Amino acid sequence: MSNKPLILVTNDDGITAPGIRTLVSVMSEIGDVVVVAPDSPQSAMGHAITINSTLHVEEITENGSAISEYACSGTPADCVKLAVNEILKRKPDLCVSGINHGSNSSINVIYSGTMSAALEAGIEGVPAIGFSLLDYKWGANFEPIKNHVKKIAQNVLENGLPNGVVLNVNFPRISENEIKGVKICRQAKAYWKEEFDKRTNPMGKDYYWLTGKFVNEDHGEDTDEWALENNYVSIVPVQFDLTAHHAIQQLNTWTLND
Amino acid sequence: MSNKPLILVTNDDGITAPGIRTLVSVMSEIGDVVVVAPDSPQSAMGHAITINSTLHVEEITENGSAISEYACSGTPADCVKLAVNEILKRKPDLCVSGINHGSNSSINVIYSGTMSAALEAGIEGVPAIGFSLLDYKWGANFEPIKNHVKKIAQNVLENGLPNGVVLNVNFPRISENEIKGVKICRQAKAYWKEEFDKRTNPMGKDYYWLTGKFVNEDHGEDTDEWALENNYVSIVPVQFDLTAHHAIQQLNTWTLND
Repeated sequence: MSNKPLILVTNDDGITAPGIRTLVSVMSEIGDVVVVAPDSPQSAMGHAITINSTLHVEEITENGSAISEYACSGTPADCVKLAVNEILKRKPDLCVSGINHGSNSSINVIYSGTMSAALEAGIEGVPAIGFSLLDYKWGANFEPIKNHVKKIAQNVLENGLPNGVVLNVNFPRISENEIKGVKICRQAKAYWKEEFDKRTNPMGKDYYWLTGKFVNEDHGEDTDEWALENNYVSIVPVQFDLTAHHAIQQLNTWTLND
Repeated sequence: MSNKPLILVTNDDGITAPGIRTLVSVMSEIGDVVVVAPDSPQSAMGHAITINSTLHVEEITENGSAISEYACSGTPADCVKLAVNEILKRKPDLCVSGINHGSNSSINVIYSGTMSAALEAGIEGVPAIGFSLLDYKWGANFEPIKNHVKKIAQNVLENGLPNGVVLNVNFPRISENEIKGVKICRQAKAYWKEEFDKRTNPMGKDYYWLTGKFVNEDHGEDTDEWALENNYVSIVPVQFDLTAHHAIQQLNTWTLND
């Protein structure tokens, strides 16, 4: 049996995406890799799980490969649940998700399938990182960020993560020598200004496409958006206890029990 | 034009569910109600949104009704985005989601379609509440909780909510006079212990059903689980800034920039 760390790799763009292929190649330099990823794209799935239909898993490991791979019909969160509870023989030492084709900075963390896999791993007690590159194209160039991905994963393996925390890592779309460094950030207070594109189908019925503009009114220099605009890699520690502890005192002044 | 507050009602069990019918009836006592809800059940959808397919909306308002109703093909988060940006003539004063048939306490908030609608409204700057009853049955009895639902909504309309906070309200399945009161709580640190039910289909291929057991190892008496077990209504203030601010200092000791 190997002494190397066991690393679970997943994503939301689907098991054939170039982003996860990059992640598999980097992680196989530092650990024993098992891939359990969606068999089709699952972007913007948030933290959806499959409870009212069945899940299918197919082992697609190539002959002679050191890396086991499984394609799953479910969401990213399903993939992590299945991997940890059914497929892997022991709890993994690390779960990495991505590399996403496109940003998951700021409020996007909440819509992100990539981050839902990392959060699910965190809930299962597995140290986890979601990686995203600010380039949504299928042909995005992941070469410039490979060294940083490796170093961040090694740091998590060596130091562990604070309880109840996973990492949301975003990379600017620049060359490796343009990257100024890595910044630990808070999530910028930004949002999507929706613009629904209303159309009429050939049967005369209206339908919509959801589009939108990203609006960042947060000028703090400690945010992920600031870091990315200024050529830094952003790391936001993300928690899955959603309690707004600071609000409890104020709500206790309400007259709910009179 | 009415001086009453404009209240957007949505859910994740679908527009015909008894839970949302109860919410519509209670809210119409305190405001002008518009319903925009999924045309089919969307449980466990997390914060999924529809970006790669089209959205359909149909007005299904009954003749002579004071309440406008729209059935939408999307997720709960889609419904809120569409309502706020396309359907409503002004920003609503309140968004209520539910009443969910089944619990959304503790870690379930992260998988919950009911709460994703409330969180989406919060992100759009609309005060929002998700309501859930600890009875997953379609025929659940919502009568015992109607007065509490009304009072909590009135408190939010009167007091507003702290910035970036929405409410996650859960009701125990007991009669009205057994309810001891309302408690402001933190989310219990609990999780699902998955048990995948593996089966073989008629073609000889394996598939899975996701099942599980809810495990609460958090014995704090300030949690939502404690409140519900002890016959209180639980209110957890929930935030959509997922930054684990307390972890930033520790991560800054790492050697990521050497």
